[in-house]
Amino acid sequence: MQMMPQMGYDRAITVFSPDGRLFQVEYAREAVKRGTTAVGIKAKDGVVLLVDKRVTSRLLEAESIEKIFQIDEHIGVATSGLVADARALVDRGRVEAQINKVVYDEAIGVEVLAKKICDYKQTYTQFGGVRPFGTALLIAGVERDMVRLFETDPSGALLEYKATAIGAGRSEVMEYFEEHYDEDITLEDAILLGLDVLHSITEGRFDVDTIEVGVIELATKKFRMLDREELGGYLQTIRERHAEEEKEES
Amino acid sequence: MQMMPQMGYDRAITVFSPDGRLFQVEYAREAVKRGTTAVGIKAKDGVVLLVDKRVTSRLLEAESIEKIFQIDEHIGVATSGLVADARALVDRGRVEAQINKVVYDEAIGVEVLAKKICDYKQTYTQFGGVRPFGTALLIAGVERDMVRLFETDPSGALLEYKATAIGAGRSEVMEYFEEHYDEDITLEDAILLGLDVLHSITEGRFDVDTIEVGVIELATKKFRMLDREELGGYLQTIRERHAEEEKEES
Amino acid sequence: MQMMPQMGYDRAITVFSPDGRLFQVEYAREAVKRGTTAVGIKAKDGVVLLVDKRVTSRLLEAESIEKIFQIDEHIGVATSGLVADARALVDRGRVEAQINKVVYDEAIGVEVLAKKICDYKQTYTQFGGVRPFGTALLIAGVERDMVRLFETDPSGALLEYKATAIGAGRSEVMEYFEEHYDEDITLEDAILLGLDVLHSITEGRFDVDTIEVGVIELATKKFRMLDREELGGYLQTIRERHAEEEKEES
Amino acid sequence: MQMMPQMGYDRAITVFSPDGRLFQVEYAREAVKRGTTAVGIKAKDGVVLLVDKRVTSRLLEAESIEKIFQIDEHIGVATSGLVADARALVDRGRVEAQINKVVYDEAIGVEVLAKKICDYKQTYTQFGGVRPFGTALLIAGVERDMVRLFETDPSGALLEYKATAIGAGRSEVMEYFEEHYDEDITLEDAILLGLDVLHSITEGRFDVDTIEVGVIELATKKFRMLDREELGGYLQTIRERHAEEEKEES
Amino acid sequence: MQMMPQMGYDRAITVFSPDGRLFQVEYAREAVKRGTTAVGIKAKDGVVLLVDKRVTSRLLEAESIEKIFQIDEHIGVATSGLVADARALVDRGRVEAQINKVVYDEAIGVEVLAKKICDYKQTYTQFGGVRPFGTALLIAGVERDMVRLFETDPSGALLEYKATAIGAGRSEVMEYFEEHYDEDITLEDAILLGLDVLHSITEGRFDVDTIEVGVIELATKKFRMLDREELGGYLQTIRERHAEEEKEES
Amino acid sequence: MQMMPQMGYDRAITVFSPDGRLFQVEYAREAVKRGTTAVGIKAKDGVVLLVDKRVTSRLLEAESIEKIFQIDEHIGVATSGLVADARALVDRGRVEAQINKVVYDEAIGVEVLAKKICDYKQTYTQFGGVRPFGTALLIAGVERDMVRLFETDPSGALLEYKATAIGAGRSEVMEYFEEHYDEDITLEDAILLGLDVLHSITEGRFDVDTIEVGVIELATKKFRMLDREELGGYLQTIRERHAEEEKEES
Amino acid sequence: MQMMPQMGYDRAITVFSPDGRLFQVEYAREAVKRGTTAVGIKAKDGVVLLVDKRVTSRLLEAESIEKIFQIDEHIGVATSGLVADARALVDRGRVEAQINKVVYDEAIGVEVLAKKICDYKQTYTQFGGVRPFGTALLIAGVERDMVRLFETDPSGALLEYKATAIGAGRSEVMEYFEEHYDEDITLEDAILLGLDVLHSITEGRFDVDTIEVGVIELATKKFRMLDREELGGYLQTIRERHAEEEKEES
Repeated sequence: MQMMPQMGYDRAITVFSPDGRLFQVEYAREAVKRGTTAVGIKAKDGVVLLVDKRVTSRLLEAESIEKIFQIDEHIGVATSGLVADARALVDRGRVEAQINKVVYDEAIGVEVLAKKICDYKQTYTQFGGVRPFGTALLIAGVERDMVRLFETDPSGALLEYKATAIGAGRSEVMEYFEEHYDEDITLEDAILLGLDVLHSITEGRFDVDTIEVGVIELATKKFRMLDREELGGYLQTIRERHAEEEKEES
Repeated sequence: MQMMPQMGYDRAITVFSPDGRLFQVEYAREAVKRGTTAVGIKAKDGVVLLVDKRVTSRLLEAESIEKIFQIDEHIGVATSGLVADARALVDRGRVEAQINKVVYDEAIGVEVLAKKICDYKQTYTQFGGVRPFGTALLIAGVERDMVRLFETDPSGALLEYKATAIGAGRSEVMEYFEEHYDEDITLEDAILLGLDVLHSITEGRFDVDTIEVGVIELATKKFRMLDREELGGYLQTIRERHAEEEKEES
Repeated sequence: MQMMPQMGYDRAITVFSPDGRLFQVEYAREAVKRGTTAVGIKAKDGVVLLVDKRVTSRLLEAESIEKIFQIDEHIGVATSGLVADARALVDRGRVEAQINKVVYDEAIGVEVLAKKICDYKQTYTQFGGVRPFGTALLIAGVERDMVRLFETDPSGALLEYKATAIGAGRSEVMEYFEEHYDEDITLEDAILLGLDVLHSITEGRFDVDTIEVGVIELATKKFRMLDREELGGYLQTIRERHAEEEKEES
Repeated sequence: MQMMPQMGYDRAITVFSPDGRLFQVEYAREAVKRGTTAVGIKAKDGVVLLVDKRVTSRLLEAESIEKIFQIDEHIGVATSGLVADARALVDRGRVEAQINKVVYDEAIGVEVLAKKICDYKQTYTQFGGVRPFGTALLIAGVERDMVRLFETDPSGALLEYKATAIGAGRSEVMEYFEEHYDEDITLEDAILLGLDVLHSITEGRFDVDTIEVGVIELATKKFRMLDREELGGYLQTIRERHAEEEKEES
Repeated sequence: MQMMPQMGYDRAITVFSPDGRLFQVEYAREAVKRGTTAVGIKAKDGVVLLVDKRVTSRLLEAESIEKIFQIDEHIGVATSGLVADARALVDRGRVEAQINKVVYDEAIGVEVLAKKICDYKQTYTQFGGVRPFGTALLIAGVERDMVRLFETDPSGALLEYKATAIGAGRSEVMEYFEEHYDEDITLEDAILLGLDVLHSITEGRFDVDTIEVGVIELATKKFRMLDREELGGYLQTIRERHAEEEKEES
Repeated sequence: MQMMPQMGYDRAITVFSPDGRLFQVEYAREAVKRGTTAVGIKAKDGVVLLVDKRVTSRLLEAESIEKIFQIDEHIGVATSGLVADARALVDRGRVEAQINKVVYDEAIGVEVLAKKICDYKQTYTQFGGVRPFGTALLIAGVERDMVRLFETDPSGALLEYKATAIGAGRSEVMEYFEEHYDEDITLEDAILLGLDVLHSITEGRFDVDTIEVGVIELATKKFRMLDREELGGYLQTIRERHAEEEKEES
Repeated sequence: MQMMPQMGYDRAITVFSPDGRLFQVEYAREAVKRGTTAVGIKAKDGVVLLVDKRVTSRLLEAESIEKIFQIDEHIGVATSGLVADARALVDRGRVEAQINKVVYDEAIGVEVLAKKICDYKQTYTQFGGVRPFGTALLIAGVERDMVRLFETDPSGALLEYKATAIGAGRSEVMEYFEEHYDEDITLEDAILLGLDVLHSITEGRFDVDTIEVGVIELATKKFRMLDREELGGYLQTIRERHAEEEKEES
């Protein structure tokens, strides 16, 4: 990043640069780019979120690195970037979901929730005395018999994807998906596709402790985390595939 | 843009430059100029808003890129610039429309709504601790049997146009309209004129997924988005025309 | 304008320069100087406001460029400078007029209204965290059987004139008035005098669409805008005069 | 004024310079020094305020340049410096006078009023986010059978004078008074003395339109402005005197 | 005072310098050092405050230069430094005295009052957005059959003295007192001692108009200003003494 | 740490650096790194917190250096970094624990408490006008028959460890634990392991006065500090071991 | 103190330096180091506070230099640093003691009081717009049949000592205590030890006017200042000892 021409335009979110950019928001995006990789994939019959937790020490309780959070019965969120900021946004999302239940007596829509979180983020990019959230989110859920998968960034922008990623390695993952993703994929294959891409991002250094996977099946409309056993099974499949591939290659 | 002479006059909206300019507002306009192209055209029997959504990846759910929003039954808005700012202004407009309904028991006038949004924008150019909105709007609607089409910019200035554009390529579109626009145009032809100009702006790279069109017919006084089928029909016409033109040219 | 000696005295309205000037207020005056030309002339039997709207595109709905506003039945205002700031001041004036009606059960005096607007402007030159209004106003009305014509600037200063102008070309207009204005002028001649001066300022490039004229007759005490027909008549007279003059000159 | 040694001590009223000065207050005094000349003179039987309004254009309604204001039945004020600031202080003074009437059921004392205005000014020299008032006042009135004449400056300091001046030419006027003022002067002679000094300050360029004179007679205890006729008489006397003097000189 | 090493530590009262100093408080002390000389002396039978008012023009009403103020029946205050700040502190002191009377139904103690004023001053040295008071006070009074004489400075520090001075010439006065002051002095001799020291400070340039003297006798416990006659008598004595001294010297 | 490229990005918590870092939070972490060493170890049957208090003078009452605090009956906290900040966080934690008791009528969960403290910390990294807490915490407790051990840092991030350390020497301790820690350790052995590592960190310079040890046994679910006798016993064991080791080495 | 590397990290309490220090707090400590010496010593049967008041002029009422204050019947405080800040903290402490009495109907504990004062100090090190207190305190008292002696500094840190000192000469006093202090000392000997150390710090320049001594006997649990007679006796003893020592030395 070129330093000279900014000359102070990048010190406050209340200041546009001469070419109409908000540098503080762009710098917050850098915090996301340095975060752990999170992947989201829509399938015909559900949607899956996968995260590489980057566990580096055996002394760490791996499950304390939360990167995927349940917001409501039917909505899960994967985060990347500043972890304390992520927790604050997740809390905000949970409160919005509860308010919706109390006020309208029904579960919040995935898109409504995503917009509310994004509106909240936007205010942190327009008013002085605060900084933007250094966190991106993948918001996955089921809504009127459709799977939804939203991505937000520190600006408060909101887009829906068929398959996407946030954090380190985002562009590699997206390239991979452009080539390999197919809308008719089953949830099971989507999980394998996600693990596949994490396998390549992490150069195969992952296991049941360092990977977190959350799914929502269209049938049940319930968000749940894969348990160690289920996850172990998928990882076994991935490893066997790669072993075969290597055999073939050699 | 020349850097030297500003010397800090461009760091806050509460500071005029020696020649009486508000640089932060002008920089916010740059954010708009880098936005997607939005076009608005008045016809005898209605008014149309068209947007090129610049969809770049097949992984993106194109309909999640919202650039045209309904504010009230009879008012639609097309936006360009920072998307999260646009959403905040759209929300503001919807609230104003609802308040008007509750207080006066009638639908808000298009001009009244446009002025309220602009007044809101103006306060973000005069008080410290905030930045201006990095978003321009085209506000289209029907009011007392007349079609209306307003354009606002980050300063809160408001103008009504027969045909206009915001975002990237604005000046090309305006030149085109100066030459080709005719006040006696029908809504159908206005849609085709708008698509024509987007065709040229995007060098023909658009389809039903990347173009959004909203219309208000004078007869129904209802804002609605064209569905994929209708839009497909218009696109077909445009493509045929251009094919013919090319044939003629060769 | 000389840059060196200011050295920061011109960055905030809360800072006097060593020679006792408020540069931010003076810079706001520059915003006015770059605005459209507005002219006000007192006559024996009324007062007139004229504005050149600088319409530059046939796509623009000329009537949406409002430069003359009615504040109360008997008061009109012409503005020059930042248009969104002008709207905010006009709104303020209208509210003051309504308050006066409710509290004292009578129409607000022209001078009282002008002072209230100026007091409001003054606070924006003494308190931090805001910028001065980048707008000048001509406030015209009838009060106790007298025509009044006030001019305000961004400092909140207030002066009454027999004939005056704000915006681009002010000094040319004032020179012209010093020479040609006569207190015994009739309203009709005042309108022609105003059009005459605008004709010269705009080098004759105006018509019923680009000129706005508001009048208050002493007899009716009502503010009203000239309609296209009336205005057309006056313009015809002006054009004929100039044609004759040119003929005479040649 | 020497620029180097200040080094920022002069950018805020909340900052003392190393030698214990408040530069912003001193700069506000410069705004006064550039203002119009106002003169006050105590006589045995009353007190007089005189102002040169510096009317420069015949288009200006001279009476709209208010430099002398009535605060209460028995108190008048002459101002110099920023005119919008002066109006704000005059308003404050009038409110204080009304409050005193309501609370104590008697007219406010001249000194009490002067102190209240000065206390108000002082707060604008100690708290951040504002600037000092760029205005000096001469406050004249009758109180317990004595004439009073106070002078305030932007610091909120208050002094009583027998004869004094504020604005441009203050030091010339004071020199003249040191030599010619006599405590046993009658009000009539005080008016002539004041006009004499303005005659010399303005090099004789004044008339009934450009001079404002307010008096309070000890007998009536009422503040009133001289009308054009009275003023015309005094001016005639002054002109005759000067004509004689010139004759004598030649 | 050396400029370089401060480097900004002296721009705000909320910033300590590396050696633990508050430069803004020290600069406020400079404002006091440039003020008029005020002297306080305790005697066996009372306490006296004396001030040289530095009257420089015969046009000035000398009594309007107030440097000694009565706070309560039994307490007087002499001030030096910024006069508008002094007035604000005196007002604060009077309010505290009244509150004490209302709440406890007895006169406020001299020390209690002095501490309250000092606590108020201290807050202006610790919180941002204000500047310290540029004023020192001598607070004299009678309390439980004892005379008290306190001195405060801009930091809010409080000390009691037998004899002291504030303002210009403080160190000369203190040296003089160290040599000549005797605790068994009578009030009459204390007045003469004070005049003596002012005589030397002003090089004899003072008279009944330029000197203000306030006393509190232990017997009456009442604060009062010496009238012109009394003061004239003391001045006569001083002048005779000095005449004799000079005769002796020659 | 490299100085040049920061260029002001490190002066406020509301400013991201171009690479998405919050320097003020990182600098607060430096305050922790310079703090005393605190160690936490989970065992099968409990969890232990140990602190080296760095007592350097015999004049100091060693017990007044509190580094381990009880938050609730079943939760203890060890701190490192700015001691006054630590006290503020401990107070906050105690209040949260009491609120939980009152609202839900049950003891607060260890993880819930840890998150509440971290959320509080996070707000000090996003809003202007404050600085982050310069303190890390180890939060140990029992919750649903499990021992918990959380570590927080100034960013508000939260992780659970099997064994960890904060403050000076953290990396040495962590290396030691990576090698020697075993999940099947008993509480008694965990205490000895902790003392062992502090022995090496302090080069053996500790005794019952300079070491603080807090434990929570899974059986009792009660937090308590080891008394001098118990602690003395463990220290004796450590010293004997090291004496033997040295003997063996020689 | 090295100037270069700070580069602005030392201008606000809300900014950490790159090595995690709060320079403004450290600079406030410098204000304490330049203060008068205050000493506190615990004895078997009580605790004593001693202060050298540095009286330099015979004109000063020595008792007005308060450095030791009673907070409650059983608690005394000695201060060093900015005297107005000390008074503010003492007031705060007295209020806390009264609140405790009213709320819990018992005297406040010494440690509780000390912590409350320190918590108050801490907030002045974390929130913007203020500066830290430039004052250290020794807080002495009796609590549950134990003598307590706390020391606080501008950071809000709190430690208990057997014997300690604040202000100028702290390190010399501490060295002396490390060598000569014995926990079994009687209160009488503690007073002599304190005077001894002040004798050496002041090079013998003290007397009953310049030394202040406050004691709390364990038996009475009452704080009281030594009167001139008692203090005179102790000083006599010290002088005799030193005379003997000198005789011995020669």
